[in-house]
Amino acid sequence: MVATVAANNVIGVDVGGTKLLVAVIDQSLGVHHRVQQPSQGLDGAALLDRLAEMVDEAIDSADGEVLGAGFGVAGIFDSKAGVIATSPHLPLAGVSFAAVMGERVGVPVTVDNDANCAMLAEWRYGAAKGTDDALLLTVGTGIGGGMVVNGQLARGSSGGGAEFGHIVVELDGPPCKCGGNGHLEWYASGDAIGRAGEAAVADKPDSPLALASADGRGVSGALVTEMAHDGDADSVAAVALVGRRLGQGLASLVNAYNPELIVIGGGAIAAGDLLLAPAREVVEREALASLGDHVSIVPAEFGADAGVIGAAVMAFEAAASA
Amino acid sequence: MVATVAANNVIGVDVGGTKLLVAVIDQSLGVHHRVQQPSQGLDGAALLDRLAEMVDEAIDSADGEVLGAGFGVAGIFDSKAGVIATSPHLPLAGVSFAAVMGERVGVPVTVDNDANCAMLAEWRYGAAKGTDDALLLTVGTGIGGGMVVNGQLARGSSGGGAEFGHIVVELDGPPCKCGGNGHLEWYASGDAIGRAGEAAVADKPDSPLALASADGRGVSGALVTEMAHDGDADSVAAVALVGRRLGQGLASLVNAYNPELIVIGGGAIAAGDLLLAPAREVVEREALASLGDHVSIVPAEFGADAGVIGAAVMAFEAAASA
Repeated sequence: MVATVAANNVIGVDVGGTKLLVAVIDQSLGVHHRVQQPSQGLDGAALLDRLAEMVDEAIDSADGEVLGAGFGVAGIFDSKAGVIATSPHLPLAGVSFAAVMGERVGVPVTVDNDANCAMLAEWRYGAAKGTDDALLLTVGTGIGGGMVVNGQLARGSSGGGAEFGHIVVELDGPPCKCGGNGHLEWYASGDAIGRAGEAAVADKPDSPLALASADGRGVSGALVTEMAHDGDADSVAAVALVGRRLGQGLASLVNAYNPELIVIGGGAIAAGDLLLAPAREVVEREALASLGDHVSIVPAEFGADAGVIGAAVMAFEAAASA
Repeated sequence: MVATVAANNVIGVDVGGTKLLVAVIDQSLGVHHRVQQPSQGLDGAALLDRLAEMVDEAIDSADGEVLGAGFGVAGIFDSKAGVIATSPHLPLAGVSFAAVMGERVGVPVTVDNDANCAMLAEWRYGAAKGTDDALLLTVGTGIGGGMVVNGQLARGSSGGGAEFGHIVVELDGPPCKCGGNGHLEWYASGDAIGRAGEAAVADKPDSPLALASADGRGVSGALVTEMAHDGDADSVAAVALVGRRLGQGLASLVNAYNPELIVIGGGAIAAGDLLLAPAREVVEREALASLGDHVSIVPAEFGADAGVIGAAVMAFEAAASA
């Protein structure tokens, strides 16, 4: 994409469980008018109102034409029915989001799952550019996923695919927020790093990690990651434990999808190779040799803006094919 | 496809770890000149010789033109390199199978993994007909797999995808034949039914299953399945245990692929709902609600001939696009 003087724009929207992020994005993927507001505590109607207001303001602020608005939503979007099927962190389940929002804002609306948007951004312009078979996992509070298969962004039969956080890594394991048990998300998310830290503290109440967490900061994934980077052995071990579980999930995905690339994004990626090296080690051991040799596991190129940028790419592509 | 008077034919070949199956197959998928020979005990050169002979004989026996020969091979076929990457049960690793066999037989040769061929047969003409997102698992000695994603038979980045038997269901679990640990194949194959029966016999040395196995027949998956069908409680429990593990793998696949259909083939399917009902129960619990509601788990329509028929379908399609 090439910038022009009077550039065409789209509105990219990341509808997350804790925040709403809206931006005007031009054809060079330049981000303008970036506005963020909380999403927590709103009911469905108030949330839709706030989103419509934020998008209207963004359209008004845009320098040039606005071709459409793309929404990446934290939830399972049934693209065939046009309905948000489930959204554990947002009061949007059952909402015909594209139709409802399309009536509210004056531009064409496209919708997808937020991790699918991140996959699209990474595939078109980021770490997975040029690949025909790639996966993405956003490892944050939970785990989101996206998949490119045979050169197409794939969403499954009802638009809800790539829910890699819900791979069952322990039959009858601990309860998952989804109602299942022993899912990857419980063992290998940012929250899991905090839980591994808590277990380490319970084991060694006099350790540096225990003392740091007694500071009133609690044992968050962020604290464990920070102390692991500073070389604290218990924290390094806690992150590595989570990395190995992540590796279990990734190895299963390598043997199933035979991707050439797996992109890891989300907040937990702050742990870097402290997380990814143990994951890669398990993949090397558990992936079939001829498949493991073909795959790279790399960090995402787009950071916190992956969602809005991917939503914008989706809106540009919808406008181009309209 | 419609039968014609002087029908065009292809040769379908199933290159399995224990047997070679060759058939002349007409445009109505009628099977003619079905010949089977053992594959065990042959070295690579002898195996290729035997295959070439069997295919030559089949071509001679065909009533009408032979458009090509399709080979479904038990192993990972790297379709981009044209080489069999790995084949644990056959001395064919590293063989440029299509090129080598193409020189030996006088017709165009196409090659794929045997489970991919079975998926193709079920997708075009069997249980998965009309679907755009479907998976197949052949549950036999091990577990093979095939996948249709977004309306395409997908093989992954190097042609080795859909190795669902190597989903890691237990980190650091028992050793798998592939060199990994705790893979689905160990817990949920036909062999696994035999192992579950052995464990039951060790627990209760006076049980009907123990007495039947003391008959010199050993505790095979077939014996346990037979006794489960006859109502033996320990055998029913052994099959159910394997079914639950199969369900763990299937639930992960449902959450990852969001398929509308999963086809289960292979020898273990002889256990029928004794195996599939416990599997479905775990899927119901572990699949995300909006995905689990969209999927059916059904037995394969093609039986032992799925491999040759799928290989033939592949050869017909290659001829049509040539």
